[in-house]
Amino acid sequence: MAVLRTLLGDSLRETRLRQQRTLREVSGAARVSLGYLSEVERGQKEASSELLASICRALGVRLSDVLREVSETLSVVEPQPLPVVAPVLEPVPDVPVAPTAVREVVDVVAAA
Amino acid sequence: MAVLRTLLGDSLRETRLRQQRTLREVSGAARVSLGYLSEVERGQKEASSELLASICRALGVRLSDVLREVSETLSVVEPQPLPVVAPVLEPVPDVPVAPTAVREVVDVVAAA
Repeated sequence: MAVLRTLLGDSLRETRLRQQRTLREVSGAARVSLGYLSEVERGQKEASSELLASICRALGVRLSDVLREVSETLSVVEPQPLPVVAPVLEPVPDVPVAPTAVREVVDVVAAA
Repeated sequence: MAVLRTLLGDSLRETRLRQQRTLREVSGAARVSLGYLSEVERGQKEASSELLASICRALGVRLSDVLREVSETLSVVEPQPLPVVAPVLEPVPDVPVAPTAVREVVDVVAAA
């Protein structure tokens, strides 16, 4: 199952390569280290929201467009979710019921 | 400018509240701590790709649907990107051209 950061990294790398720009150039424009950008592109590091926005600005693309593209790619491979089963809450009795063991002791005492 | 983790958190919280489920219930189903889920919902913590997927599963929604919703919300407020200015490479002349000043000296010498 493809994880989000892999798909995001793929999308960012494809955009950069389409622009025929180097890791050095884009990382400089985004003010992130070259190694960090490389790891994000390879899906090895989660980009924080701020740095993701910065990389998108450096690439001249909108994060919303990147996310839409990623969501479309993901929707092809992502299975339908399992239905959520609501927990069955047993009604709480109004009158406290003594545990069986206690009631047995009471019965024994009462019979004596 | 809204950051991605805030929009993701808003979307996850709205889904949970629509299902009338508690933080405790969903965090248990997603196998994340209650405090972590709460921080993710409030946009105070970046959820890793794996935990985001796990929270979505616990909510019975697809991550791709969450991302599409978030991208639509983001696209309303996100400005158009600045155009990427490619560096202008001046053509390298085949024949070396002497700078104007040098040529003027040559002309003066030739005229003498």
